[in-house]
Amino acid sequence: MNKPTDDLRTRLRDIIFGTDTPAGRIFDIALLVLIIGSVINLMLISVAAIEMRVGTLLHGLEWLFTLFFSIEYITRIYVARRRWAYIRSFYGLIDLVSILPLYLALILPSAHYFVAVRVLRVMRIFRVLKLVRYANDANVLTRSLRHAQRKMQIFLGVLALITTVLGAVMYVVEGPAQGFTSIPRSMYWAVVTITTVGYGDIAPGTAIGQTIAGVAIMLGYALLAVTGGIITAELTNEIRNERQRRQCPHCERSGHEVDAHYCKFCGGDLNHDDEPPDDEEQAASRDKLD
Amino acid sequence: MNKPTDDLRTRLRDIIFGTDTPAGRIFDIALLVLIIGSVINLMLISVAAIEMRVGTLLHGLEWLFTLFFSIEYITRIYVARRRWAYIRSFYGLIDLVSILPLYLALILPSAHYFVAVRVLRVMRIFRVLKLVRYANDANVLTRSLRHAQRKMQIFLGVLALITTVLGAVMYVVEGPAQGFTSIPRSMYWAVVTITTVGYGDIAPGTAIGQTIAGVAIMLGYALLAVTGGIITAELTNEIRNERQRRQCPHCERSGHEVDAHYCKFCGGDLNHDDEPPDDEEQAASRDKLD
Amino acid sequence: MNKPTDDLRTRLRDIIFGTDTPAGRIFDIALLVLIIGSVINLMLISVAAIEMRVGTLLHGLEWLFTLFFSIEYITRIYVARRRWAYIRSFYGLIDLVSILPLYLALILPSAHYFVAVRVLRVMRIFRVLKLVRYANDANVLTRSLRHAQRKMQIFLGVLALITTVLGAVMYVVEGPAQGFTSIPRSMYWAVVTITTVGYGDIAPGTAIGQTIAGVAIMLGYALLAVTGGIITAELTNEIRNERQRRQCPHCERSGHEVDAHYCKFCGGDLNHDDEPPDDEEQAASRDKLD
Amino acid sequence: MNKPTDDLRTRLRDIIFGTDTPAGRIFDIALLVLIIGSVINLMLISVAAIEMRVGTLLHGLEWLFTLFFSIEYITRIYVARRRWAYIRSFYGLIDLVSILPLYLALILPSAHYFVAVRVLRVMRIFRVLKLVRYANDANVLTRSLRHAQRKMQIFLGVLALITTVLGAVMYVVEGPAQGFTSIPRSMYWAVVTITTVGYGDIAPGTAIGQTIAGVAIMLGYALLAVTGGIITAELTNEIRNERQRRQCPHCERSGHEVDAHYCKFCGGDLNHDDEPPDDEEQAASRDKLD
Repeated sequence: MNKPTDDLRTRLRDIIFGTDTPAGRIFDIALLVLIIGSVINLMLISVAAIEMRVGTLLHGLEWLFTLFFSIEYITRIYVARRRWAYIRSFYGLIDLVSILPLYLALILPSAHYFVAVRVLRVMRIFRVLKLVRYANDANVLTRSLRHAQRKMQIFLGVLALITTVLGAVMYVVEGPAQGFTSIPRSMYWAVVTITTVGYGDIAPGTAIGQTIAGVAIMLGYALLAVTGGIITAELTNEIRNERQRRQCPHCERSGHEVDAHYCKFCGGDLNHDDEPPDDEEQAASRDKLD
Repeated sequence: MNKPTDDLRTRLRDIIFGTDTPAGRIFDIALLVLIIGSVINLMLISVAAIEMRVGTLLHGLEWLFTLFFSIEYITRIYVARRRWAYIRSFYGLIDLVSILPLYLALILPSAHYFVAVRVLRVMRIFRVLKLVRYANDANVLTRSLRHAQRKMQIFLGVLALITTVLGAVMYVVEGPAQGFTSIPRSMYWAVVTITTVGYGDIAPGTAIGQTIAGVAIMLGYALLAVTGGIITAELTNEIRNERQRRQCPHCERSGHEVDAHYCKFCGGDLNHDDEPPDDEEQAASRDKLD
Repeated sequence: MNKPTDDLRTRLRDIIFGTDTPAGRIFDIALLVLIIGSVINLMLISVAAIEMRVGTLLHGLEWLFTLFFSIEYITRIYVARRRWAYIRSFYGLIDLVSILPLYLALILPSAHYFVAVRVLRVMRIFRVLKLVRYANDANVLTRSLRHAQRKMQIFLGVLALITTVLGAVMYVVEGPAQGFTSIPRSMYWAVVTITTVGYGDIAPGTAIGQTIAGVAIMLGYALLAVTGGIITAELTNEIRNERQRRQCPHCERSGHEVDAHYCKFCGGDLNHDDEPPDDEEQAASRDKLD
Repeated sequence: MNKPTDDLRTRLRDIIFGTDTPAGRIFDIALLVLIIGSVINLMLISVAAIEMRVGTLLHGLEWLFTLFFSIEYITRIYVARRRWAYIRSFYGLIDLVSILPLYLALILPSAHYFVAVRVLRVMRIFRVLKLVRYANDANVLTRSLRHAQRKMQIFLGVLALITTVLGAVMYVVEGPAQGFTSIPRSMYWAVVTITTVGYGDIAPGTAIGQTIAGVAIMLGYALLAVTGGIITAELTNEIRNERQRRQCPHCERSGHEVDAHYCKFCGGDLNHDDEPPDDEEQAASRDKLD
């Protein structure tokens, strides 16, 4: 590549990924305002009473938002070190989903593909996920969540087993008269019950059904409370151990936070992360998330 | 200021802020009784059946309560070291809101501004927040809450993202026939569902909707349970570290409670807080909250 | 007192309080069966369909149960070291409430005091609380609960404040048309909502009401989740500290469980509790609860 | 036994219990697919609309699944070291329940024993519990759950006591007019309420009932939140202690995970478990679960 283009890319990269430069900060805030504004705009469009009165204005605004997000998307591809990697990444897909539906709606004859149009209309709201880019402070949480992924799967597995068995039992005990018309529907009831949501659209009506439901609710509640307690207890000890295990390579003192970059005693680099950034994704995440 | 006035202010200050003097203790208990009594009074007034029978008595009592709180408010301004700071403080605003609505109701012609009158009538119940002054024992909790503020924001952020996406999806899947008439209304359903409140006023009716709702409820439930576990685990280690980090400057032993004032081993002052009180707010909070 | 009576009292005491003697063990199991049996009996009596068919049998059984519990009550008074203390204690009151209603029902002309009779009939079910005597294994829990009493009060205080303010706000916003007919009723809705019970008998119907409710639910949910996390975190560190603080007076090693009686390293007595039992209450609790 | 038979048994055992051999891995995956497929199949059969259209296909598939599970069951008995022990074990019973109902349905004249047929039809779904065999990663959780069994019983006991007392009180206060027709039904309401499920099929209607319910919900909620916190706190310290107590017999360093088999510092065997496998159950669990 020739120099000036390179220069433009570097400057654009500074604006898009920079959090310390004035231009970068303005871009960040402007993007934040536009995302939230456009999501609120989509919400308002979905309210029939509002859409009827100021629909033209709101739809116009939606076009403006989409235009901006389109420019943003193209710029992000342009400045990306590894273009294809960005396009296929979570952020790339979200950026695409934020703009694509409106263009597709132009092509599709709306009268014929009613469902498709409706889906496209709402897919645009997924642009709210662009906000995940701002979650740099949630870092510890997301890292902990990835750490606790296995535990969450077990939790979900226990939940799924209870749901299937309880749903099947209640399908037999209560039957179609009380709304338990099929096992999937009974399982829907079981999910709504065991998670303590309890809509009441389906509820046991017979004495036996209420007895079984009552006992199952109590057992499930206690089981999930204790399971939650075990997961919390395990996490507490793991986080504690992880902290104690982290040792500064310079002063050899331990007890550093999971997301600390520098030793809190001698200020030395805890990670020895001196490799040059060779991946746009990684660089972006370092700029935005670390 | 001249001596006698100064003397009066000091004595009044003793009564209002003192918790060790007999006058101060009597004032505290009297105020407590009056706050609770006046809140119960407002509740009773709102019950139509009771208001019809003994309304005159209750409205009379309300005037008495307001009179007392007015005297209290004026006195608090009078004795305040920094009057303007008190008036703009949380406590100052609550004290004002406790009395203002009744006086405003006199001025406003009730027939014309019906909504305003109703709002004013209920704003008076905010005087229940005067009780926060008595929460000196909740100190550790409030301090921990301020500490955990960042975590609560993340929790709320995760909740808001889930709510928006789930609400939009269900708006498309279920549609107006099942009560999902707009995205905001679908988001209301999503909040009610994900937090496991589950009124049942809006509930998925189609098979696809119930399947999506069932899976979303399970995922959301597991996610929030594990997120709660992570927050608890982090807090456990942070509180533990904070305690270990706190070292007595006299005997150099650590392990003191977060809200301890004196070393539990040698009795030395842990805070070296010898500055003279220069702010009424600070003094008040020291008298009442520490 | 003369010897033979003393001997009888000692033997009866062995039966009632002893957990190691065969007679004591048989008494414990028999009492357990009788309590559970009589509670189930009362439940069955309350079911109209069952009462109509086998009412005579069930009422006869109830008289037998009451007779046994009466003999037990009199014997407990007889063997008590401090009779008056037993009668006024929690267990004494429960034992009395288990038998009194049936006798009172004989005296009261049932036709005239319908409500009183109904209350008496159900008060008998409080004999289920006799089971608390068997909760010797729950010792750590109850001790912890007493320890965490302050925290629970704070939790309840926060809950009460939120409920009052939210109830008042929704009373103004929604009004009688949606079922928010008075502040107490709105507060009932607020309790049902904030604790995530969510019956749906009262639910916000207007757009503003649903928005406020949605935001309040999310904030309340996050606040209570984090408050629960803080309480758990505090308890974890307190239990840990308490254990570390407990030191064996013989071998001076620490780390003993909160409810340990003997050092787990040298077997020495951790409590030095050599005082003679001078109180029946204390003796009873030592026999049954320790 | 003669050699060739022994050889066949060893080879089959390798396939069924082996997780490292290719044949064993293929068997594991095939069984997993068959279990999940057959459970989904049973769910689809229960949906009337689907059963009417493709019922013949689904019922045919069910016969195929049952055939495979029958072969699996017979093979498992054949290779088992202690046949009777396997048949009576949890896994043996689940394997039997997965196939028996379909055969029984052939024998029973379906017209006469309608309820029995319905029960048999749904019992087949219990084959979902065959998945527990795959829960080798849930090991820590199940071990912790067994550890926390006592705590869960206490939790359930507290829940049962609250439910009984609250149910009885509401039965008196609300009465049949509001749906509280009997104490068991009131207790069903109490379970649904205290666990925060809150269907709303039964809800207090009178002012006194709503007040009592509101206070009971708040107290119950706070009690259970704090009880859950105590259980979590206890578990955190117990898991921590257990880890610290585990010492490698070779290098004498401690801090090993509860489910670790080898020392993480010197690689030595932590368990000294050198006994030859003498029980099929134990061997199976070692192959599948460890």
